[in-house]
Amino acid sequence: MLTTSNRGAIQPFLAMDVMSAANRLEAAGQDVVHMEVGQPGAPAPQIVRDAAARALQDGRIGYTDALGIRSLRERIAAYYSSHHGLEVNPDRIAVTTGSSAGFNLAFLALFEVGDRVILPTPGYPAYRNILGALGLGVVEVETKEEDRWCLTPEAIRAEHARNPIKGVLIASPANPSGTIMEADALKAVIETCEELGIWFISDEIYHGLEYDMKAECALHYSPNVVIINSFSKYYCMTGWRIGWMVLPDAALRSVECLGQSLYISAPMLSQVAAIAAFDATDELDIIKAGYARNRDLLMAELPKIGLGNFMPMDGAFYVYCDIGNLTNDSMDFAKRSLEEAKVAITPGADFDVDRGHRYVRLSFAGTYCAMEEAVRRLGGWLA
Amino acid sequence: MLTTSNRGAIQPFLAMDVMSAANRLEAAGQDVVHMEVGQPGAPAPQIVRDAAARALQDGRIGYTDALGIRSLRERIAAYYSSHHGLEVNPDRIAVTTGSSAGFNLAFLALFEVGDRVILPTPGYPAYRNILGALGLGVVEVETKEEDRWCLTPEAIRAEHARNPIKGVLIASPANPSGTIMEADALKAVIETCEELGIWFISDEIYHGLEYDMKAECALHYSPNVVIINSFSKYYCMTGWRIGWMVLPDAALRSVECLGQSLYISAPMLSQVAAIAAFDATDELDIIKAGYARNRDLLMAELPKIGLGNFMPMDGAFYVYCDIGNLTNDSMDFAKRSLEEAKVAITPGADFDVDRGHRYVRLSFAGTYCAMEEAVRRLGGWLA
Repeated sequence: MLTTSNRGAIQPFLAMDVMSAANRLEAAGQDVVHMEVGQPGAPAPQIVRDAAARALQDGRIGYTDALGIRSLRERIAAYYSSHHGLEVNPDRIAVTTGSSAGFNLAFLALFEVGDRVILPTPGYPAYRNILGALGLGVVEVETKEEDRWCLTPEAIRAEHARNPIKGVLIASPANPSGTIMEADALKAVIETCEELGIWFISDEIYHGLEYDMKAECALHYSPNVVIINSFSKYYCMTGWRIGWMVLPDAALRSVECLGQSLYISAPMLSQVAAIAAFDATDELDIIKAGYARNRDLLMAELPKIGLGNFMPMDGAFYVYCDIGNLTNDSMDFAKRSLEEAKVAITPGADFDVDRGHRYVRLSFAGTYCAMEEAVRRLGGWLA
Repeated sequence: MLTTSNRGAIQPFLAMDVMSAANRLEAAGQDVVHMEVGQPGAPAPQIVRDAAARALQDGRIGYTDALGIRSLRERIAAYYSSHHGLEVNPDRIAVTTGSSAGFNLAFLALFEVGDRVILPTPGYPAYRNILGALGLGVVEVETKEEDRWCLTPEAIRAEHARNPIKGVLIASPANPSGTIMEADALKAVIETCEELGIWFISDEIYHGLEYDMKAECALHYSPNVVIINSFSKYYCMTGWRIGWMVLPDAALRSVECLGQSLYISAPMLSQVAAIAAFDATDELDIIKAGYARNRDLLMAELPKIGLGNFMPMDGAFYVYCDIGNLTNDSMDFAKRSLEEAKVAITPGADFDVDRGHRYVRLSFAGTYCAMEEAVRRLGGWLA
């Protein structure tokens, strides 16, 4: 009897399911405002697309070294020097097929089947799903709005004392809350992990998208952290599937060998194009200024239509909104928002299995017009 | 104490390590003939690159549905109808980030940690490495040159009787041997798997590259097989990282959910471009005719320089050569071939841990000139 596996029966990524449903509505001629996935409305910068177009003309788009094209690895190292004042050897940089590949590679290189890894909730659902598929123990630690949704050293110590922990994964700016960890708080968590012999994985995919405060790079506090980053968010290159890791020396060869077999290499065209992305900050900062305007609009307007229970967003491009005043079933709320108001939003269950039923996440990475239209539609629908 | 995992300490993919070493030699100004990786020398067809260039101009390269752009899935389904006379519902097609992602998704969706999967050896090393990283049991079954390197129903029954098997993975045309399974032999293996309740995974990445006989699609013999294919080989799109699976209904939702979290989606530009690939058969058949000429050249010339112990290649673009007459250490042979003759070839240990020490694999996917030069260099070096 042919049966599929239990480990393959993971939870759907609801934001993707909503996007899929929204795409079907659009294919049927409906107009939908997309606030469901964390995807910039703008295309990649012109010089990035020009670099890709040149590579298309030049000839073969072939396999690259598993760790990526050398010149891209060197350009990423230069970014750490110019942006963070950190000297990083290009040998420590692995180019990956988006941050998705970075997580998969990090989890495989660092953890055995059965190892326990702390994820603060609410958080990005793919962490949980990838860990589960790889046979790892997911330790979800609830964070609180009054702690700015941040994991504390005390919570790590408490879990580790109960049953040893092998890894901690944190994103700052965070998804879905947009919270940035203050430098001291981040340092304290990393030092706690070092002391306890726990790997610290820092998801820095939303770096560059900060509004009122700066997000620090975890490399400032230890050379043993694993950094995961991507060109998808600030650099507007989602569908290019291109990202990178900064690795401690001990993990380099494992990640290289795993990458050879699991990915061969990241898409070459995207690698060539990504080199240009670091020189597109003028264009990208204009796009970021657009997110800041969207953020101001939503902070001012959402409360007027009954969606006012959220923390100010330090970074990223999400509002994580408590809708407990309206419903206790955010899954149904999101479904009806798409079907009735034609606004695609993501139910909180994606990010927090236990408490997400009273939250939704709205992405403000789209255009200002789309944000205005979303407020209009949601306002009319909720009234 | 921070330690990396044992499961991450997989064997390197030697072909990639050789490529990496060859790239370093080239960066230092040396001229290297590449016969180490299975990569067409030709770029993707012009209409494929034109489609990509148009998509770059049109705007955003964004996430797609996890299972891929609908029009690509439909185009792939149409290929099964026109090329194989098979009606396949586009819903059963998953677009993947190369066949690499197809293997990872199939293994996760079908097998639990500890399940045993048969791989005929010699075979593609990434199968073994991915299975190992995912905590699966790799059952390597030696095939013989006198059986045309083909797995038999008897070998499957014998292993299954000893200790139950959950999956069998076969490639035809095969890597590294180029062998194609005859229709009856393939049918017998698939029927044996069905009878025993074993998943059959068919790696059809070298379909389209057949010289003296036709490779059959496994879907002819059962709707329960999992097909893995790619645009990398016949379609000359290696670095684009784009492939597909045909799935039985039971595995579809698992693969979709796993894909959402592990990959989000395949690179969009590559998906758009791949739609055009099916209309490029005129250009691609000219490239394939070039492989056939390379094949004729090597079959005629290699024996003259002491490299004559290989089976005629039914398909793909590899010679799997027994060099037992020259050395018992193919790793050293390949290293010296690169350093001394400046011809990059892959040691057999990649494909067969036990017997590979007396084999090497040479890819003939490059240009005719490169093949002539390789014969000249290897001949001079061996003389």
